[in-house]
Amino acid sequence: MHIGLVGLGRMGNNMRARLRNAGIEVTGYDANPAVSDVASLADLAAALPEGQKLVWVMVPHGKITDDVITELAGVLSEGDLVIDGGNSKWLDDSVHAEQLGAKGIRYMDAGVSGGVWGKDNGYGLMVGGDAKDVEFAMPVFDALRPEGPREEGFSHAGPIGAGHYAKMVHNGIEYAIMQAYGEGYELLEAKDIIHDVPAVFAGWQRGTVVRSWLLDLMVLALNEDPKLDALEGYVEDSGEGRWTLEEGIELAVPMPALSASIFARFVSRQGSASPTMKAVAALRNQFGGHAVKKA
Amino acid sequence: MHIGLVGLGRMGNNMRARLRNAGIEVTGYDANPAVSDVASLADLAAALPEGQKLVWVMVPHGKITDDVITELAGVLSEGDLVIDGGNSKWLDDSVHAEQLGAKGIRYMDAGVSGGVWGKDNGYGLMVGGDAKDVEFAMPVFDALRPEGPREEGFSHAGPIGAGHYAKMVHNGIEYAIMQAYGEGYELLEAKDIIHDVPAVFAGWQRGTVVRSWLLDLMVLALNEDPKLDALEGYVEDSGEGRWTLEEGIELAVPMPALSASIFARFVSRQGSASPTMKAVAALRNQFGGHAVKKA
Amino acid sequence: MHIGLVGLGRMGNNMRARLRNAGIEVTGYDANPAVSDVASLADLAAALPEGQKLVWVMVPHGKITDDVITELAGVLSEGDLVIDGGNSKWLDDSVHAEQLGAKGIRYMDAGVSGGVWGKDNGYGLMVGGDAKDVEFAMPVFDALRPEGPREEGFSHAGPIGAGHYAKMVHNGIEYAIMQAYGEGYELLEAKDIIHDVPAVFAGWQRGTVVRSWLLDLMVLALNEDPKLDALEGYVEDSGEGRWTLEEGIELAVPMPALSASIFARFVSRQGSASPTMKAVAALRNQFGGHAVKKA
Amino acid sequence: MHIGLVGLGRMGNNMRARLRNAGIEVTGYDANPAVSDVASLADLAAALPEGQKLVWVMVPHGKITDDVITELAGVLSEGDLVIDGGNSKWLDDSVHAEQLGAKGIRYMDAGVSGGVWGKDNGYGLMVGGDAKDVEFAMPVFDALRPEGPREEGFSHAGPIGAGHYAKMVHNGIEYAIMQAYGEGYELLEAKDIIHDVPAVFAGWQRGTVVRSWLLDLMVLALNEDPKLDALEGYVEDSGEGRWTLEEGIELAVPMPALSASIFARFVSRQGSASPTMKAVAALRNQFGGHAVKKA
Repeated sequence: MHIGLVGLGRMGNNMRARLRNAGIEVTGYDANPAVSDVASLADLAAALPEGQKLVWVMVPHGKITDDVITELAGVLSEGDLVIDGGNSKWLDDSVHAEQLGAKGIRYMDAGVSGGVWGKDNGYGLMVGGDAKDVEFAMPVFDALRPEGPREEGFSHAGPIGAGHYAKMVHNGIEYAIMQAYGEGYELLEAKDIIHDVPAVFAGWQRGTVVRSWLLDLMVLALNEDPKLDALEGYVEDSGEGRWTLEEGIELAVPMPALSASIFARFVSRQGSASPTMKAVAALRNQFGGHAVKKA
Repeated sequence: MHIGLVGLGRMGNNMRARLRNAGIEVTGYDANPAVSDVASLADLAAALPEGQKLVWVMVPHGKITDDVITELAGVLSEGDLVIDGGNSKWLDDSVHAEQLGAKGIRYMDAGVSGGVWGKDNGYGLMVGGDAKDVEFAMPVFDALRPEGPREEGFSHAGPIGAGHYAKMVHNGIEYAIMQAYGEGYELLEAKDIIHDVPAVFAGWQRGTVVRSWLLDLMVLALNEDPKLDALEGYVEDSGEGRWTLEEGIELAVPMPALSASIFARFVSRQGSASPTMKAVAALRNQFGGHAVKKA
Repeated sequence: MHIGLVGLGRMGNNMRARLRNAGIEVTGYDANPAVSDVASLADLAAALPEGQKLVWVMVPHGKITDDVITELAGVLSEGDLVIDGGNSKWLDDSVHAEQLGAKGIRYMDAGVSGGVWGKDNGYGLMVGGDAKDVEFAMPVFDALRPEGPREEGFSHAGPIGAGHYAKMVHNGIEYAIMQAYGEGYELLEAKDIIHDVPAVFAGWQRGTVVRSWLLDLMVLALNEDPKLDALEGYVEDSGEGRWTLEEGIELAVPMPALSASIFARFVSRQGSASPTMKAVAALRNQFGGHAVKKA
Repeated sequence: MHIGLVGLGRMGNNMRARLRNAGIEVTGYDANPAVSDVASLADLAAALPEGQKLVWVMVPHGKITDDVITELAGVLSEGDLVIDGGNSKWLDDSVHAEQLGAKGIRYMDAGVSGGVWGKDNGYGLMVGGDAKDVEFAMPVFDALRPEGPREEGFSHAGPIGAGHYAKMVHNGIEYAIMQAYGEGYELLEAKDIIHDVPAVFAGWQRGTVVRSWLLDLMVLALNEDPKLDALEGYVEDSGEGRWTLEEGIELAVPMPALSASIFARFVSRQGSASPTMKAVAALRNQFGGHAVKKA
């Protein structure tokens, strides 16, 4: 099989390597000529074998993905298949599908999990689209997903958009699990009788109810920096966490733990500049004459 | 009526003034001789008229209140009445009642709300104890509480401990209301189309569903400092908020809003030193190679 | 002054009464002919004095408001002014303003708070629009708002949309304050030593930090039904709470208390059908053989 | 090695089997004679070899554990070692250690995780106590813990109490992870474009960031009952979750996600009887005339 891959950043580059290792021929395109196999998307399209060409898009969501889709609509042909494997919002998928569909080009969305470890471990995949497109692209999915039973590292979640939707929910869950370990870590660190927090985390890796891949990563992090002294408690959030919460609001799904995780990240970036807490401080000062901290 | 008042800090001093304005004779004692009317608790007891002496205790909760109670047990007599009006934990009340009761001395607890405004506005009172003690002390309660119908500024919540318990819950609610205004304030501040946040708050004082005394205080604070620039978003918490949450846990009462308010205060004092968020940052870095902020 | 009022439901009907009491002539239109003063919006427009006609719209947000705006665009003239006083989403305002503006018709949005009490107490108003339109409509605002200083019951929050935005935030705060009292109520109810919960709430009305109009309403409710036995713990949510949370997500404003209030409402409508808690029950059963409750 | 084991319920019975499989001789005692190897704790003590006897206690925490410790203090001798492997509160450990220590009997606490799967997979262990006692009991720990490196399934967390403390935090984290999967599950179930929720969960088992043992259990549960129709959303909570939250309050550790998980369980047991939501419903009715659901 010979496919096109658009976007050769950290993720795309790793995926190209994994695909080639699995025997799939990959022509890659990136806006950066230093890493690109071809000079343009037109060249990419031309490089692929006639018949049903498959192009996997792996670029930042939003405008950049929109632009790539628009350009692909111009260089691909009826019956070709585009798979957006980036972190696009699920609502973008129907737009992209329609745009490509106007030219008879097929579309699928794929949520991809695994981060920098995916190159070696394989990527967890959740896809949305038509069954026959899923079938056609299956050699690519099989190359990207981890070894083991297909259904343990791959799912066909539903029609177009369902793959990114499932990935979005995956990331919402991920946020809350990270927050859970974080809160537990802080409590253990705060308690005088716990003499060896890294050992406690390490000892949770086998046999316990809380063992997980994220726990394994926590152990790695604590091995490198047992008190996490080198870090600030400052955490960005990507789109998926917010979108998950938006969907919870839209569908009246209570999300106390997921929302707590997202808000904790918002707060982490404010520090003592939090307007909410300035207001609370102002109120305490007004009614109680409580001391406040002046800026 | 002539009563004793132990503790002449900001609250005690204001209360003495309000009581005297209402025609109640007050002999005050404070560890600080500069503000004290008498030299010792023994002198305080001696200064009160024979019969059922009434001593109101208004000192910091914990060890200081414990010590005052112990000392009062030595200088008062059977039938006298001690009222703890400080912010003692409700569990302390039965201990103090028993300690004094061994000498035949009566005991009541009184939760007092109103802060620095109480001197002029009167204090909201919630008391715990026996009905006949409530009746005996009523002139004092009537002097301290706001004008208007007694039942709108005073309640006999239950037996010993119930006054402090009701005050504890009052403060838990207070935390959450302050947090609510704070979050709304932050959102208004963050929104470009809201040109005059202080005007919006001011305009909520009449007719709206959210009008309240705390809102009035927010308006005062914004009058003084429209952007709250002079403050840091750093807020202490006193015992009552934590105790309220402990009781919620004990009695299986879900407290998502109250707990959120307390945790927001905890976080406000951590800034970028939050171990929870360091752990989350470490995890993101491990799996995604996401950039982290180095300390 | 003589204005038009579209929508004579509970809110509109009360507002017409209050406006007329203040000496403003009101021609009302409602789809229900039984309560309508005129037969159509065209008749309403015709009934108003030439010059700058003012029409206040007070119908359910969404499609019904959209339709009224569309119809008003056809029957009003350049220079006339439409004020949407309903609970429209702030994003709708710029659409409506543009639609009317194409005909030279002016537009303002007004957030209105006060519920069924507004007829007698006056309504808290937050408006968005141009200063000269605010000035023109001021007699209407003055008639609707509570007595007292204008700036305590009325605010000009910013340009078009700002009035509904401020009202949206108002409602978000309202949700959290209600939740705060609810949680405090539940804890008091759960505690054996609190013998008279209604008395405690009643006694908070004067002097305390938590006194508010919502507290007064809580006292009224407990007067009618001291244990709230007649009610189910089932609470709907209207759009504003959700929109507030959406905006918090969009603007990275942490909203732990507001979100908790909204999620509590979502949960209140699920009971034992909560899929989240079914999943948690399933997990406990899997790892611990813990007993679960079968449907 | 030959040890005593007190408590042959589900956990104790499984542990006896695992210990015996590992070549450790076990004399078990249970209050139920049908499953007990000996008739009394005195017989148990007598059955163990002279020298440093080791008795592992595996009974419900609280009074039952207290009673067993008291009785063991009477039948064991100086230098013997008691290990409490049950779910005791960490504060109980110093009491038990002192009680036994008065007779020269040694004490350790062990947090044990793994549930019904521990018999085959091994149990994750966190222990508190002196290093020399840890060393003496290591053959027992090695038999109980999972295969693989010792430090991945066992930790010596600190002095007496630290084992149960670490296990308490483990369970707090467990609650939040379960809640995270639950919220994600509910959102996927609520979304029309997700056609196969069990397949999505199954596909997360390999390669994804959220893979974990609890996820594997979720897959097992969905295999048995794809819609979880057989369950009610009703979840008990055990002591550890509450204690974790109490400790967070005590040590000022913000716990938004952990507390959310616990409160969700509290709410799950209330349904429409929630007093908080009755109060919120009452308030809405008061100010807005909003329809309420009558009991």
